[in-house]
Amino acid sequence: MKKEFTQLIFQRQLPNPGHFGPGALLIYDQIFEQKPGFKKWISRFPNSYAVKSGERLKNIDFFPNHMKKILKATEGVSLREIHIVALGGGSVGDFAGFVASILKRGVRLTHLPSTWLAAIDSSHGGKTGLNVSKLKNQVGSFYPAETTYLVQSLLTSQPEVRLFEALGEVIKISLLEGRGLWKKLKNCARVDTKLYWNLLPLMIQSKNKIVSQDPFEKSGQRHLLNFGHTMGHVWESQLKLPHGVAVLYGTAFAVEWSLEKGYLSSQDYYDLRLSEIGSYLPDRMDLLKLIHYTKNPKKFLMQDKKLVQDQKIRFVFLTAPGKPRVELVSLKDMALELKRQKTRKKL
Amino acid sequence: MKKEFTQLIFQRQLPNPGHFGPGALLIYDQIFEQKPGFKKWISRFPNSYAVKSGERLKNIDFFPNHMKKILKATEGVSLREIHIVALGGGSVGDFAGFVASILKRGVRLTHLPSTWLAAIDSSHGGKTGLNVSKLKNQVGSFYPAETTYLVQSLLTSQPEVRLFEALGEVIKISLLEGRGLWKKLKNCARVDTKLYWNLLPLMIQSKNKIVSQDPFEKSGQRHLLNFGHTMGHVWESQLKLPHGVAVLYGTAFAVEWSLEKGYLSSQDYYDLRLSEIGSYLPDRMDLLKLIHYTKNPKKFLMQDKKLVQDQKIRFVFLTAPGKPRVELVSLKDMALELKRQKTRKKL
Repeated sequence: MKKEFTQLIFQRQLPNPGHFGPGALLIYDQIFEQKPGFKKWISRFPNSYAVKSGERLKNIDFFPNHMKKILKATEGVSLREIHIVALGGGSVGDFAGFVASILKRGVRLTHLPSTWLAAIDSSHGGKTGLNVSKLKNQVGSFYPAETTYLVQSLLTSQPEVRLFEALGEVIKISLLEGRGLWKKLKNCARVDTKLYWNLLPLMIQSKNKIVSQDPFEKSGQRHLLNFGHTMGHVWESQLKLPHGVAVLYGTAFAVEWSLEKGYLSSQDYYDLRLSEIGSYLPDRMDLLKLIHYTKNPKKFLMQDKKLVQDQKIRFVFLTAPGKPRVELVSLKDMALELKRQKTRKKL
Repeated sequence: MKKEFTQLIFQRQLPNPGHFGPGALLIYDQIFEQKPGFKKWISRFPNSYAVKSGERLKNIDFFPNHMKKILKATEGVSLREIHIVALGGGSVGDFAGFVASILKRGVRLTHLPSTWLAAIDSSHGGKTGLNVSKLKNQVGSFYPAETTYLVQSLLTSQPEVRLFEALGEVIKISLLEGRGLWKKLKNCARVDTKLYWNLLPLMIQSKNKIVSQDPFEKSGQRHLLNFGHTMGHVWESQLKLPHGVAVLYGTAFAVEWSLEKGYLSSQDYYDLRLSEIGSYLPDRMDLLKLIHYTKNPKKFLMQDKKLVQDQKIRFVFLTAPGKPRVELVSLKDMALELKRQKTRKKL
């Protein structure tokens, strides 16, 4: 049931549940039961399974129990008709995508991302994952959805805070793209729903372009999407920052290091820093304070899946918008750079 | 790390553990610790993980705990170097293959089948699986190994009973092939190690030919490999027969039904029944006795993953050696045929 390319559908309203066939199973964030209008929509699915979103959903310890209930819900449905429809944010999509990838060796999958973070990033590219102990996505698959719906009414009803939780990924993908998308974002003084909705097609396209060059993360091309994520993941794990916020800091850290290494010119650096959107990127003082609370990330990076060679990881630098540069750096150099950013005098 | 084609290596002795690189993790049947010579060979792997073979190994309830230990064993190993080497029979291969398919979204995999059943069938074609509650392979993946080693000294050291546990799959694949392989097998009066080893390349090739036409079980071609398995799985589950023995009975059941339907000519039927190898196939009296102990298979077949349409399953008939015929049959017709084979007077 696996497809390399996901069909994207942009529409104003939620799709008709009947569209997904008699074997549809909606896996959804239980929060929607409290939102007006959703209860009836959910009840129109032949089968549904409510989950509580968050990292606990992705904990492998609870997975056998989930699978038993999900199998029960699909009993008597023929293999070809089972169709998982995932409604929720990143954790729900990661979980439901993983379920779809291994249930009866793979069933149909549609994503209905409900957060900006999921709509922009996690529902595209096919990565699914579960966490083992405290380590994220140690188990998972590459399993692109058949279709991803980008539903305006669903996305624009989110609280404002979700906009900022996605900003890290928004700036990341725009800097990686470096052309039309970056130019559009750069001069935006106001981060709002309208901006995200308008930039959404370009952001998804930019991500998919990178993914399509390396769908299974073999050739290294896909690693570019890790821009801002190396320290981002450390902060997400150690300081419990929301993913997008952690990536925002991680991106700022990578930009600072790129300048220090001489990869990013002063002109490009200030052009970025002084742009309208640049004011949303944590500054040196923000970074300094955050690094102050950071424990040595060595152990985390050793356990995480990013180690390439003994004590070395791939780090994505920026030489200019649209021109990332991947380099092997030692964990020692990483620690030295953290120290430098924490202790430098001149801000 | 996924490959569509598995490299087959036939050799006399076990491969050198050093060959699998510094990130090799041997997942092996713990029984080998008691066999002379193996302990030392196992100790030459950088990492190893002993498991007890059998269906319990494939139980999803124990899976989180296995994954924690396996992750621990691969800590600090770079993603590209993790290489799972599976030594054991079908359950070990199914388990280790599934682990390899989802560990860090997929790592390298080599199979070292130690039973005839695994060497002939389960280590080829990439199917992996775990059991949920009492239902087999409800969760799994298609993940062909990079390499499968067929090691003569390993396979020929098995006790005689393993020969008969594989006979169902041997006869199945030979009947599906219907040409050179079937002719060679047909006139064999003696089922022994030498026969299996000599036929092994042809048996694997015949299976792989079918798999390659439908690697993800989409087009239906791969369903041919289910010949003998519909009732085989019922008997394996209800009567706890070894897989290969259950398939032997399932094949006999399918042959009888094919004759009854008029798909298989009397001439071909008696040619098969009266061949040397035909004497190993359960006869009508054997089937009658087994069906006597069989409960209504409807519930099992409903829960299993074979239901195609409401109350219907795909059944593989034989019209002649090399000429299988797939047909949708209702669960009711299946029950009627079971009753017929149980109650017919003339044997």
